[in-house]
Amino acid sequence: MAPNSKGNDYNQSSQDALLPDPPKGPLCMYRAKSSFNWKELLLFLDGEDMIILKKRIFSAFENDPLFAHHPEEELPFEKYRELNFLRCKRLFEYDFLTIEEIMKNPLKVFMLISCLGMYDWSLSAKYFLNTYVFASTIQNSGSQRHMHFIQKTLNMEIFGCFALTELSHGSNTKAIRTTAQYDPTTQEFIINSPDFEASKFWIGNMGKNATHAVVYAQLYTPGGQCHGLHSFVVQIRDPKTLLPMPGIMVGDIGKKLGQNGLDNGFTMFHNVRIPRENLLNRTGDVTPEGVYNTSFKDVRQRFGASLGSLSSGRVCIIGMSVVNLKMALSIAIRFSATRRQFGPTDDEEIPVLEYQMQQWRLIPYLAATYALDHFSKTLFMNLVELQLGLLQNDKSIRQAELGREIHALASAGKPLASWTAQQGAQECREACGGHGYLAMNRLGDIRNDNDPNCTYEGDNNVLLQQTSNYLLNYITDRHQVSLAAYKWLVCYLLQESYQKLNQERKSGSDDFEARNNCQAYYCHPLALVFIEHTVLQRYHDYTHHSSTPAPLQPVLKRLSALYGLWSLSRHMAVLYQGGYFSGEQVGKMIKNAILGLCAKLKDDAVALVDVIAPPDFILNSPIGKADGELYKNLWTTVLQGSKVLERPSWWTEFSTHKPIIGSLKSKL
Amino acid sequence: MAPNSKGNDYNQSSQDALLPDPPKGPLCMYRAKSSFNWKELLLFLDGEDMIILKKRIFSAFENDPLFAHHPEEELPFEKYRELNFLRCKRLFEYDFLTIEEIMKNPLKVFMLISCLGMYDWSLSAKYFLNTYVFASTIQNSGSQRHMHFIQKTLNMEIFGCFALTELSHGSNTKAIRTTAQYDPTTQEFIINSPDFEASKFWIGNMGKNATHAVVYAQLYTPGGQCHGLHSFVVQIRDPKTLLPMPGIMVGDIGKKLGQNGLDNGFTMFHNVRIPRENLLNRTGDVTPEGVYNTSFKDVRQRFGASLGSLSSGRVCIIGMSVVNLKMALSIAIRFSATRRQFGPTDDEEIPVLEYQMQQWRLIPYLAATYALDHFSKTLFMNLVELQLGLLQNDKSIRQAELGREIHALASAGKPLASWTAQQGAQECREACGGHGYLAMNRLGDIRNDNDPNCTYEGDNNVLLQQTSNYLLNYITDRHQVSLAAYKWLVCYLLQESYQKLNQERKSGSDDFEARNNCQAYYCHPLALVFIEHTVLQRYHDYTHHSSTPAPLQPVLKRLSALYGLWSLSRHMAVLYQGGYFSGEQVGKMIKNAILGLCAKLKDDAVALVDVIAPPDFILNSPIGKADGELYKNLWTTVLQGSKVLERPSWWTEFSTHKPIIGSLKSKL
Repeated sequence: MAPNSKGNDYNQSSQDALLPDPPKGPLCMYRAKSSFNWKELLLFLDGEDMIILKKRIFSAFENDPLFAHHPEEELPFEKYRELNFLRCKRLFEYDFLTIEEIMKNPLKVFMLISCLGMYDWSLSAKYFLNTYVFASTIQNSGSQRHMHFIQKTLNMEIFGCFALTELSHGSNTKAIRTTAQYDPTTQEFIINSPDFEASKFWIGNMGKNATHAVVYAQLYTPGGQCHGLHSFVVQIRDPKTLLPMPGIMVGDIGKKLGQNGLDNGFTMFHNVRIPRENLLNRTGDVTPEGVYNTSFKDVRQRFGASLGSLSSGRVCIIGMSVVNLKMALSIAIRFSATRRQFGPTDDEEIPVLEYQMQQWRLIPYLAATYALDHFSKTLFMNLVELQLGLLQNDKSIRQAELGREIHALASAGKPLASWTAQQGAQECREACGGHGYLAMNRLGDIRNDNDPNCTYEGDNNVLLQQTSNYLLNYITDRHQVSLAAYKWLVCYLLQESYQKLNQERKSGSDDFEARNNCQAYYCHPLALVFIEHTVLQRYHDYTHHSSTPAPLQPVLKRLSALYGLWSLSRHMAVLYQGGYFSGEQVGKMIKNAILGLCAKLKDDAVALVDVIAPPDFILNSPIGKADGELYKNLWTTVLQGSKVLERPSWWTEFSTHKPIIGSLKSKL
Repeated sequence: MAPNSKGNDYNQSSQDALLPDPPKGPLCMYRAKSSFNWKELLLFLDGEDMIILKKRIFSAFENDPLFAHHPEEELPFEKYRELNFLRCKRLFEYDFLTIEEIMKNPLKVFMLISCLGMYDWSLSAKYFLNTYVFASTIQNSGSQRHMHFIQKTLNMEIFGCFALTELSHGSNTKAIRTTAQYDPTTQEFIINSPDFEASKFWIGNMGKNATHAVVYAQLYTPGGQCHGLHSFVVQIRDPKTLLPMPGIMVGDIGKKLGQNGLDNGFTMFHNVRIPRENLLNRTGDVTPEGVYNTSFKDVRQRFGASLGSLSSGRVCIIGMSVVNLKMALSIAIRFSATRRQFGPTDDEEIPVLEYQMQQWRLIPYLAATYALDHFSKTLFMNLVELQLGLLQNDKSIRQAELGREIHALASAGKPLASWTAQQGAQECREACGGHGYLAMNRLGDIRNDNDPNCTYEGDNNVLLQQTSNYLLNYITDRHQVSLAAYKWLVCYLLQESYQKLNQERKSGSDDFEARNNCQAYYCHPLALVFIEHTVLQRYHDYTHHSSTPAPLQPVLKRLSALYGLWSLSRHMAVLYQGGYFSGEQVGKMIKNAILGLCAKLKDDAVALVDVIAPPDFILNSPIGKADGELYKNLWTTVLQGSKVLERPSWWTEFSTHKPIIGSLKSKL
């Protein structure tokens, strides 16, 4: 702690009770050098209320044997699934958040997702796909007649999943092929999968557990008319036995690269009959006689409204990616501050964090973590505002604009955050050398669990197109002034993309082809540059705002400056190409400024990580522990492994049954 | 197959026997469009002899039940270890390569490593660490008195490992702390680990299996003089029981992010006595009385000679990385050619390979695979030449220069190849969407097994320094003419790095600090640009050589051009900064040329992948099968999973034991 920093206006002793000092150890050297008080920063960023919620969740886990960690080699696939279910059930007993608390501060939902994810993303996903995604889809797409499903979900009488994707269709949701044919004689819908390629596939919770699914299917009324994609509540298993309902083939899709505590599954429907009332009828309904009616004028508009809730999924993924960055950097920076290798003389080795290369590899990601964290929270609050407007049936221009803007920000923010986390986790893994490759240190799980963030809720590359489409529509409306490099970049790439699109069209391409041929080097970087600019602008404003405590401003401003320059440096070729930059000096200046900021932030890095790291039990990484006793923690954990010193069960296969060299040699 | 291409001078019917046509199916559409005959290209690249060897290995595996694939969820950690050992033992029975065959064509060793790795990198590593690394270290560092160890290794009487790295030291090998104290009274060395931080750690084969280790330790003679790092053969387990020898604590370091069939381990030595003769005495020896003698003048020189063999490890890793690229791209390109999503109209969906974005994401990596494959083979042959010279005790200037050059090429080639493979595997995983995240499709294993290539045998970032050091020494000797952009880039960055280094020195930094402060933006890109230029130059020469069959030249030249432009495009900012590029047009031209080449190569991509893909059994990826029946293969494999349709064993935990909501709610 720096001598001149103070715990702002928060009472010192209760601050210490809430935020105890980290344990003494090798990291103290860096902690003593930090330019700010980490407790002050944490209180400023999260607030006492949020810190108490985190503490409540983390302490519950640490004190509950059901949440004890198991080395992965001892936890077979099946067992992990079971444990994850039991932990999920336990969350119903802990009931960490009441509806009232959520209404008072919706960010707490976000915090709960994050805390569960810091413990294990499989648990977070299992719980939220049921309790929030399944239930809130019914809430948002259904009506009073469906509320009993929500009540049963919250009591765990039933368990839900969200079934949109099919084996052969993900991104192109309009091409979903499951059908729901209305039969007026029994007042039922008959659900069918035309073939296995139209099986519902990848559905989280469906593999082993879910009793009910929100199923997206093409709605047909008698006479054969198709009314497009609608959602239906379909019971897929008997809650009393967990056996499939008649006509349903449901199973598990098997092992994934990560998140294996979650049971992703598939379903094929064969003449499965469900009550007429199970149609979620917010956007359209069918009368008992079989007449379809909707308040929307055309299919496209109705379709848009029914899938509009996807934005919230994307905003969540931005937050999840930030959590992964927080964990990966906590591990890698603590490791780098304690791992010593080489030095100016043969006798003296220095922490690898002292090397410019190591700083340059890690500290910009730390800056990105802070900037994206702020972005994800503010975007979440924008989303809350939007949803309040929807509930109040706000039809103002501002409401419509907000909807489009959030869609654009979430569609590009998700790729930016998930890619930054994926690359950051890989960099952290490599920056920890071999020890980063050891499973117990958790960087592999972080990377592997983050990986699907690049894919679900819309493939990153496809999503970027949504944002660039939004921007291309925008060009006809307004003009911007290029004040700073990013503004220029957005304008330049917008103009270039617009020209390229027109050029493609003029040369005879239809709209589909023209848009496809403008992605690489045009619309794709346009969307990225736009979102980076937004993230930076928001973080810049925040760190420069008068409400930010003065002792914290220097370090936060440095983080903001580093994030901006580092992000910008990846677009330098375009800045030169378009003539915004010229000459040798500007390029060198930017690079030198990045290295200078890394060096300045180096002594703050450990304290910055203390702010974002979860407790040791949750972080669950020997090389990332807060005491910095790198080797002691690693060694102890290795020795706790199962059968670590035992000879292998198959020892006679070596000792007694010797091979006869060349006995199977081919005579080919 | 294009109608006008012919199977060069190789007899058509025996060609068909050796290289059967791929199965009919959805990929035929692209195969019919290819501009060249894939069999002709394969024969040209590999030669009949090599193709026969591959076939011998792959057929043996496919027909041997011991090599049957197991879904990962059914293969517990312990079981995988056992299976990998049994398969390794079976390799001794197959004895795929004789010493004579290797002498005739050393590239066959490389091919064997690659083929084993295509099946499973754990198997490849286990076999080669014993049979090649352990045995050849004894061969190269020992003398006649050690040959019995090699004979026993080849008979599998003993099993070996290579023990250099310690818990707290990897890159800085000079700081290794294990000691070997000579005791003249018994004519033995006494091996000790001063503490657990000096335990040997990460050693492949040591965890469960190895009976003998080549141990690197500081050699002390009576009187306490230290003679620096030497290698010793130390017996660590009894081959009759696989139990540890007295004074040895040996164990398994646990689960890793990949390669879990290999048992990486640790050892601590407590007064372990080994015969004096077990010192590998190529560079220095101790007399029975305890006098140290060496033919090298200083420690540094001896040290360099004893670790010189590390180059061959790095060259191997380049090849291993290329194999991973081959597999990942085979899967992703076949997937992209058969996965259809969206289309110009709602009724018609097109293969995702038709999208410019998908081409831009994958085809440059395909070009890189071809260019790096050629580089790895030619560098391997350079290495063979170098080693022949060493055996013949060649002390010419050319030999010394070759040694330095290979060291520089291997030290930068390893980072380039392993990073390209790591990023390529991740891109392939994302390009296959959710199905790429399914473990059975193998992209996760490929990425995870490739990952350590970035770390072992020298951390990539550290290795790049070796190459830039070589180049910086070089600047004082010669001048080059800047003919092409890459040559200019190398010169520019060389000059900039040299100036930066001098500037750092002038401003008072010592050599250690000065070098560290020139890495980011200077020496680091210098080494990368240098190696990319070399890879490109070699591939360019190869594809433009008159011996390359005319029908193959167009496609190979396009690959070479694409690899060059794509690699170059990442350095455009520097090209502009240094004034080699100016104006908007050149930047746009390069980007358009890349997209144009991707579009041209798009119809050849499937055939190019047919050339590099192993048989379906070996590739072991439902979405990457040669018949292109994407969904059928995926669906069938999912249904073969264990207990896929069964209800979970823990169903009563849901059905009967319901949670009491909020029963554990904290009163905090």
